[in-house]
Amino acid sequence: MDIITITGFIAAALTTGSFLPQAIKTIQTKDTSGISLFMYSLFALGTLLWLLFGLFSGNMPILVANTVTLIFASIILVYKIKYK
Amino acid sequence: MDIITITGFIAAALTTGSFLPQAIKTIQTKDTSGISLFMYSLFALGTLLWLLFGLFSGNMPILVANTVTLIFASIILVYKIKYK
Repeated sequence: MDIITITGFIAAALTTGSFLPQAIKTIQTKDTSGISLFMYSLFALGTLLWLLFGLFSGNMPILVANTVTLIFASIILVYKIKYK
Repeated sequence: MDIITITGFIAAALTTGSFLPQAIKTIQTKDTSGISLFMYSLFALGTLLWLLFGLFSGNMPILVANTVTLIFASIILVYKIKYK
């Protein structure tokens, strides 16, 4: 595997995984005042479309990464709506 | 352009653009208590690696989208560090 492909895998792991600490923080603190409802609405919708794109284009990495991201983003969005 | 490609473009626009309302909210309110420093550290690094991946693999959409996202994410990260 070449350095460019490895860079892509690390990039995907970081951008997908980064939403986990935010989800944990939001669940633990219920502090959502600084979180943008507009951001997470657009982001969750965008991630859902990426998921569908991955599904129907047969791109497994895009499908898997965006399924995980959608779960984290949805948790943050639900908490933002519930504890705004 | 087929429906799958269009879905991908809309998905890219949404996930990239979603960070703009968060950046605007953070700049206006300086309210970063609910924002995860760990998330934006990992996310900004991941976006930088995506940018390099796009640059060195000659993938212009990935390069452009991640340059824009990196700008927004960096603004949020700087505010989080400054006003935590």
